[in-house]
Amino acid sequence: MSGQLDELKQRMARLSDLKYASALASWDQQTKMPARGAESRADVLATLAELRHREFTDPATGRLLERAATEVNGADPDSDDARLLQAVRRDWEKARRVPGALTAEIAHAGSRGQEIWIAARRDSDFATFQPALQRNVDLARRYVECHLGHDGFECAYDVLLDDYEPQMRTAQVSALFDELKGELLPMIAAIKDAPAVDASPVELRFPVEDQRALAREIVELMGFTDRGWRLDDTVHPFATGVGDGDVRITTRYDENYWPMALFGSMHECGHGLYEEGSSLAHPRSPLGAVDSLAMHESQSRLWENMVGRGRAFSAVLAPRVASHCKALEGIEPDRLFRAVNRVEPSFIRVEADEATYALHIILRFELEQELIEGTLAVADAAEAWRARFEDYFGLEVIDDADGILQDVHWSAGLMGYFSTYALGNLIAGQLWERAHRDLPDLEATLAAGQLGGLRDWLREHVHRHGAKYPTAELLARELGAPISVAPFVRYLKDKLGEVYGLSL
Amino acid sequence: MSGQLDELKQRMARLSDLKYASALASWDQQTKMPARGAESRADVLATLAELRHREFTDPATGRLLERAATEVNGADPDSDDARLLQAVRRDWEKARRVPGALTAEIAHAGSRGQEIWIAARRDSDFATFQPALQRNVDLARRYVECHLGHDGFECAYDVLLDDYEPQMRTAQVSALFDELKGELLPMIAAIKDAPAVDASPVELRFPVEDQRALAREIVELMGFTDRGWRLDDTVHPFATGVGDGDVRITTRYDENYWPMALFGSMHECGHGLYEEGSSLAHPRSPLGAVDSLAMHESQSRLWENMVGRGRAFSAVLAPRVASHCKALEGIEPDRLFRAVNRVEPSFIRVEADEATYALHIILRFELEQELIEGTLAVADAAEAWRARFEDYFGLEVIDDADGILQDVHWSAGLMGYFSTYALGNLIAGQLWERAHRDLPDLEATLAAGQLGGLRDWLREHVHRHGAKYPTAELLARELGAPISVAPFVRYLKDKLGEVYGLSL
Repeated sequence: MSGQLDELKQRMARLSDLKYASALASWDQQTKMPARGAESRADVLATLAELRHREFTDPATGRLLERAATEVNGADPDSDDARLLQAVRRDWEKARRVPGALTAEIAHAGSRGQEIWIAARRDSDFATFQPALQRNVDLARRYVECHLGHDGFECAYDVLLDDYEPQMRTAQVSALFDELKGELLPMIAAIKDAPAVDASPVELRFPVEDQRALAREIVELMGFTDRGWRLDDTVHPFATGVGDGDVRITTRYDENYWPMALFGSMHECGHGLYEEGSSLAHPRSPLGAVDSLAMHESQSRLWENMVGRGRAFSAVLAPRVASHCKALEGIEPDRLFRAVNRVEPSFIRVEADEATYALHIILRFELEQELIEGTLAVADAAEAWRARFEDYFGLEVIDDADGILQDVHWSAGLMGYFSTYALGNLIAGQLWERAHRDLPDLEATLAAGQLGGLRDWLREHVHRHGAKYPTAELLARELGAPISVAPFVRYLKDKLGEVYGLSL
Repeated sequence: MSGQLDELKQRMARLSDLKYASALASWDQQTKMPARGAESRADVLATLAELRHREFTDPATGRLLERAATEVNGADPDSDDARLLQAVRRDWEKARRVPGALTAEIAHAGSRGQEIWIAARRDSDFATFQPALQRNVDLARRYVECHLGHDGFECAYDVLLDDYEPQMRTAQVSALFDELKGELLPMIAAIKDAPAVDASPVELRFPVEDQRALAREIVELMGFTDRGWRLDDTVHPFATGVGDGDVRITTRYDENYWPMALFGSMHECGHGLYEEGSSLAHPRSPLGAVDSLAMHESQSRLWENMVGRGRAFSAVLAPRVASHCKALEGIEPDRLFRAVNRVEPSFIRVEADEATYALHIILRFELEQELIEGTLAVADAAEAWRARFEDYFGLEVIDDADGILQDVHWSAGLMGYFSTYALGNLIAGQLWERAHRDLPDLEATLAAGQLGGLRDWLREHVHRHGAKYPTAELLARELGAPISVAPFVRYLKDKLGEVYGLSL
C-alpha cells in the first residue's frame, strides 16, 4: 500500500487549486469585473464552492484520512504530517455536516449580495439591501443548524465564530471584550477632556495619483515586489492570495484624507506578508492557508498601527509624505505622529482610531449575535444600529451608508467574522511587546526605514507556521501566554499618553 | 420522471461556470498575474481542466443524454434543445476517449509552456523553448491516439483540427488553401512590381497613451462599453468571455507602429462582439460557447480589415487618428487608406497584410502536420521554419523571436488551430459580400462611423446562433453556400487594386 498520505496530500492540493480559483474570481469581481459580469460570477463562485465542498466531503477523503493515519502513527505529533491530518480531519467532519446545495446557495447569495450592497451603500438605502441581508441571515441559521450539538458548540454564534477563529468560543470573546471595554472607556473619556490634537496635516488635498505613489513606496519597504504582488483599487479593501506566493492587495483613495490609502495599504500588505509567508512555506497544502482571522488581523494591525502610525516610523514617513504632497513640505515627524493618532469617535470602522476601534467591533459582535439568535429582526437592524451607535459613540447616524451599510461582510454572508478584528489587535499587542524584547534595536531600525528585521521575526514566529497550530497553541508556543488584553492596553496607553501628554 | 433535459442543462451550466473560471484564470495570467504566480496558476488550470473533463465524461452525463433524448423526441430537430443534445452527445463521446490525467497534463503543460515561451521569445532562444514544444507535441500525439478510428478521422491532423473547427477535415482545408495560394501568389507578384505605397503615415512616433485613447474610442464605436467589457495590455493579444456578457479584450502597443494596437483592438473587439452575442443569447449553455474558430475569426478579421482598413471607414479614422497624434494632423482619408493597406512580405503574422497573411498560415499548417506526423523533429523545427519562410517570403529569419517563437499557440498546446485564421478570412469575405447585398447603404453608414447596422446584421446572421450549427450548416442556412475562396479574393482584388492602381 503505497502512500495513502501522499494521495491525501494530492487531493488536498487539488482543493487548494480550487480555492485559489475562487479567490481569483472574487478578487476580479472586486477589482476588475465589469458590472454585467455579476450574474455569471455568482454562478461561477457557487459552482466552485459546491465542487470544493463535494470533493472535500467525499467519502474517499475519509478513507484516505483513515489509512493515512496508520502511516503517520508514531510520527512526531508536532510534525507537519501529523498536524495536517488532524486539521483535515476536523474540517472534513465539519464540512460533512453541510449539504452541498446549502454551500452553493451560501456562495451564490454572498456573491449576489455584494453586488446589491455596492448599490445600496452608494444610495445609502438599507431597504434595497434588506432582502439580501435577510437571505444571508437565514442561510447562516440553516448553516448553524447543521453543526449545533457537535464540537462542543455551546450556542449558535459559536458555530459561526469557529469558521473564522477555529476553536475560539463566544464566551471567551465576550470576556475579553468586557475587559477591553473596561480599559478603553476611561481612556477615551480622559482623552476627550484633553486638548485636541492638530489634525490639519491629514485634512488637506492630496491628489490620488500622488497618494498612489506614496502607498507603493511604503509597501515596497515592507516587502511588496512586482515579482509576486499586485496593488489595485477597490471599494472595500482586502488582501488575498490567488496562488502560492501570488498576493493581491487592494486599497481605496480619498483625496481629502490621505491616511486612508496609506495606512490601508500597510494594513493589507501586513495580511499579504502573512499569505506570502504561509503559502510559500506550505505550498498547495491546507497548512499554507491561515484559518485564524485573529492571527491574520494581528499582522495587518501591527503593520498599520504599531509600525505605520508609530513614533519611530514617523521619521521615515514625514519626508516621504512631504515629497509627494507640496502642502506637507517640511512637516515634522512629531507633528505627523500626533495627527495620525488623533482619537475621535467617528462613523466608519476602517477609519477609526485605535482607541475607539474596538467599540465598532463590539457593536457588530452584539448585533450579529442577536440577528442569528433571532432576538433582532433584520427589518429592525438599521434602527438598532443607529440606537446602539448613539449609545456607544454619542453620534447620530444620519446615512445608513455610514452606519449598517458601511461594511461588506454581511452582504457577502460573512457572519461571525467581526470579532476577529479586535482579537487581532490584542494579539498584535502581544507580538509587538515580544518583538521588542527579542530585537533590542527594533525602534532604531524602524526609524531608519529598515523593516526587514521585524518582517523576518514575524516570518519566524508566525508566518512559517501557516495553519499548523490553532491560535491558542501558537501563542503558547511562541509567546508562552494565552491571548490577553494587557499588552495591547499597555501599548495604547503609552502611545496615546505621548500623543495627548497624559498619564493614562 | 421530471425534467431529465433540465437536469442535463443544469449539469452543462455548471460546466460552463468551470469553463469561465478557467478563462478568467487564463486572462489573469496573461494580463495581471505577477511572475511568481505562474507555478500555482498552472496547477489551478490543470485541476480545473481535469475536473471539467471528469464531470463531463461522467457516466451520469451519458444517462442524462439518453433520457433527455426521449423527452425531445418529436421536437423540431432545429430547436435549441434538439441541437443542444446533439452537440453535447458528440462532445461527450469525444471527451470520453481521453483519460482525465492526460487532459490535466495537457492543461498543465500549456500553462507552463506559455511562461517558458515568454522568456524564450524575449531572448529569441529556441533551445529554451524546445523541451516545452517537444512535450506539447508528444501530448498532442497521445491525444490523437485516443481518437483515431472514430468520427471518420482520416489522419492524425484531422483529430486536432476538429477541436478548433468541428467537422472540418484536413483534406478540405488543403484544397481551399491550394486554391487560395493559387490566387494570392500572382496578386502578390503583381503588387511587388507596382510603385510602392507611401507608408510614412504609419511609420512615425505615436505615444502609447494617445494610442490607448484612440483604440478605446474606436472600439466604443463598435459596441465596447464599460458595463460589460475590459480592454487590457498583454504580450499576445486575445479576446475571451469570462462570464455571459463579460468580455475581456487585450492589445499591445508599439510606439513606432500604431496600426498594431488600433487594428488589433478592432480585431479582438470583433471576437468580443461574437462572445457577447452568443453568450447572452444562450446563457450558461454550451450553445453559447462558439466552438468554430473559423467563424470566430471571420468576425475579428471582418472588423479589423474589411471595416477598419476599409475605404469607407478611413473617412472616420483619419480625423480621429489626427486628433490623437499631432504628426498626423490633417491627414487625408485616402492617404491613410493606402498606408494601412500596404502589401509587403514581413516576418510577423499578426502584422501581415491581407495578401501575404494566408502564407503565414499555410506555413504553420504544413509544419504542424509534419510535427504531428513525426516527419519533422522538434529539434529541427526552427531550422525548418527558417528554410520554409525564405522559400515562401524570400526573407531570411535572423531571430527566432521573429520566426518560430512569434506565436503563443504551440507553447500553450494549441496545435491544429492555425488554419482557422485563414478560413476565417474566407468566411469574412462571404459575409461581407452578403452584408452589402442586404444593407445597400452599408458603405455610407460605415463612412459616417455608424457601425450599429453591420453589428446588428452580424448579431442576426451569426452571433445569436452561438454554437448551434456547425460551420458548414450555418453557412448553408445564412448564405446558401459552402465555405469558398472566391468572395474573399474578389474583395481583396477590388481593395488592393484600388490601393495600387492595378487591375488585379
